[in-house]
Amino acid sequence: MFDQEMAQKAARNLSRLREKKPLIHNITNFVVMNSTANTLLAGGASPVMAHAPEEVEEMVSFAGALVLNIGTLTPYWIESMLMAGKRANELDVPIILDPVGSGATSLRTRSAKRLMDEIDIRVVRGNASEVLSLADDHSKTKGVDAVHSVEDAAKAAVQLSKEMQCTLAITGAVDLVTDGEKIYRVSNGHELMGYVTGTGCAASALIGAFLAIDDSALEATTTALSYFGLAGEKAAEKAKAPGSFQVAILDALFSINENSMREGAKIR
Amino acid sequence: MFDQEMAQKAARNLSRLREKKPLIHNITNFVVMNSTANTLLAGGASPVMAHAPEEVEEMVSFAGALVLNIGTLTPYWIESMLMAGKRANELDVPIILDPVGSGATSLRTRSAKRLMDEIDIRVVRGNASEVLSLADDHSKTKGVDAVHSVEDAAKAAVQLSKEMQCTLAITGAVDLVTDGEKIYRVSNGHELMGYVTGTGCAASALIGAFLAIDDSALEATTTALSYFGLAGEKAAEKAKAPGSFQVAILDALFSINENSMREGAKIR
Amino acid sequence: MFDQEMAQKAARNLSRLREKKPLIHNITNFVVMNSTANTLLAGGASPVMAHAPEEVEEMVSFAGALVLNIGTLTPYWIESMLMAGKRANELDVPIILDPVGSGATSLRTRSAKRLMDEIDIRVVRGNASEVLSLADDHSKTKGVDAVHSVEDAAKAAVQLSKEMQCTLAITGAVDLVTDGEKIYRVSNGHELMGYVTGTGCAASALIGAFLAIDDSALEATTTALSYFGLAGEKAAEKAKAPGSFQVAILDALFSINENSMREGAKIR
Repeated sequence: MFDQEMAQKAARNLSRLREKKPLIHNITNFVVMNSTANTLLAGGASPVMAHAPEEVEEMVSFAGALVLNIGTLTPYWIESMLMAGKRANELDVPIILDPVGSGATSLRTRSAKRLMDEIDIRVVRGNASEVLSLADDHSKTKGVDAVHSVEDAAKAAVQLSKEMQCTLAITGAVDLVTDGEKIYRVSNGHELMGYVTGTGCAASALIGAFLAIDDSALEATTTALSYFGLAGEKAAEKAKAPGSFQVAILDALFSINENSMREGAKIR
Repeated sequence: MFDQEMAQKAARNLSRLREKKPLIHNITNFVVMNSTANTLLAGGASPVMAHAPEEVEEMVSFAGALVLNIGTLTPYWIESMLMAGKRANELDVPIILDPVGSGATSLRTRSAKRLMDEIDIRVVRGNASEVLSLADDHSKTKGVDAVHSVEDAAKAAVQLSKEMQCTLAITGAVDLVTDGEKIYRVSNGHELMGYVTGTGCAASALIGAFLAIDDSALEATTTALSYFGLAGEKAAEKAKAPGSFQVAILDALFSINENSMREGAKIR
Repeated sequence: MFDQEMAQKAARNLSRLREKKPLIHNITNFVVMNSTANTLLAGGASPVMAHAPEEVEEMVSFAGALVLNIGTLTPYWIESMLMAGKRANELDVPIILDPVGSGATSLRTRSAKRLMDEIDIRVVRGNASEVLSLADDHSKTKGVDAVHSVEDAAKAAVQLSKEMQCTLAITGAVDLVTDGEKIYRVSNGHELMGYVTGTGCAASALIGAFLAIDDSALEATTTALSYFGLAGEKAAEKAKAPGSFQVAILDALFSINENSMREGAKIR
């Protein structure tokens, strides 16, 4: 029923992450800096947060991946993201963009598009409206009256991924991941995740960590989302409300091992 | 002994909050952004944090309430608060101000007063010294040698509320809420709340959420404080120290339902 | 085996902290503001975070200690730190510096050295590479090929402490604390602390709290580290993964009393 090869890959990526402990450079929003750092630590990566224009180029040169997140955005931060992103491109450090709130305000939409235009982003992760907001005005996904079904969403995602030339992850009850050719669906996760702030941002950071140890952006993204969703499922076995659930997710991220990852992955 | 009508109102407000899930726009301090967002989510609201002058007017136009909090203040943030506040006033989006540290430094006092002067604030919530610091130099509450009793505090609050033309919530062991006419006292709460950072800020954010679904600022404020205090009481049944207590508050905010709210409210 | 006098001192400092509840002024990084405030509250101190140049001099005048932490640094913050630090020096408010990331980027190293040059720092706490990065180019600790043993590290620390004329705490599996004359070793702690973000920053803030109630920087630093490490040990008895461990540390900081402190201290 589920993809056994991808379950194996998820287990292998997790094991590689803990062995290599890559430094993940985050330029992210104020709300989630602490929870993102703790998520990366619990998973086995080494987080660093740095946003000063005076140091981002130097910091990203030590990193296995760069995570850009536009929540609590100001223009100052976009300049830092561009500087870090350009240096990351020169050094072939993979970049993931989390376009938090793109489509909601024009500052966010404009800034996310500028990042897409000026630097080479390997992966974009967001919810459907955030990701669709990044489409060009002449995109084939524009003008569609609405996305009427999961299949419509999948087709739009594949189309957009081709146009944007990066891997897209549209997360929701079922996560869609596509590189414009192949498409994976991840059905790990739990609804309580929506009651904890920053779970989307944490997922993006974990994708960053997996990009640092897996050259396939499609597989790194898919397996990272499966890992994070599985942590949510394990947490929900222990906790029924968001305070204790949030604690239990960190515990689960730390405790999931190769075996439980392989057995728990729900990738198609 | 307790006001049964207000207990009913608290239950009804909680139910309305979960049904409407209003977007609450917060311009708040760095220390509490994460815990404030989690508090709002656990209660049933949809938090957003945004402070860039380039987007606050747009963001607040989607919001059911605007929460302004002057902790970790810099002048840049005050300008954003003023922009967001003016737009909120135009759109009749209710505003709550949390004057963190007003009275302690002149930047805070001056900034809080400027917000009071230049925008129409519906509710102010703070501790006694913060709220009293907002009084004009010619206020009748100035020059009083000291507040000698709970009754003195109540009289000063009513007087100040009339002068400032907004609802005031002075929180402490017993919370006082007044619109200059009526006064409510809320005795929900637990002393462990003083050992967790940002509980006052969380209370203010919840008042924002209740303002979004209740046109009476007096009743929205009173019932929100009762709800938050009750969550503290429920948390203290499970946790005896601040780490686990903080987790248990979020769980309680999520778990309190109409019945337990009605039964637990301690409003007079 | 362990130093009984220092165990007594740790217990006495803890008791004094809870009695005096000193205000601790933190100019610290975005990642740890919330957890640092909660750490200080759980221990018994009163935290305040304030970084605006317009108010830091006023705020620090109320404080028992000033904590400077250069994580998520920008030049704006360094100016605030210098202003607060100079005022603290005038008022004889003790200062602790946490040089997060010094040695990793030149902005951090340069900024940490500038703070050391322009203000009088009582204590520096960091890991070995952060602390060693502060040595002058002509320091006797430079040019050493490597620190080959714990004894080498101790000798370098004593030398550096003399050169820098402040108390140094180099934290790791065993913490070294020296004022250039005496040296203490603290072996409290637990490896799970490395999986929670901001534990180093929390330790620095607690040193600040102890500096506010103990005139001996050497003993304040040593006992604060013993207290924090003991909280880690107690937490590890209850929690086996970083989410619940983080919660349990705050609980332990709150619950450790004079007796358990005296019995648990591992200072040599």
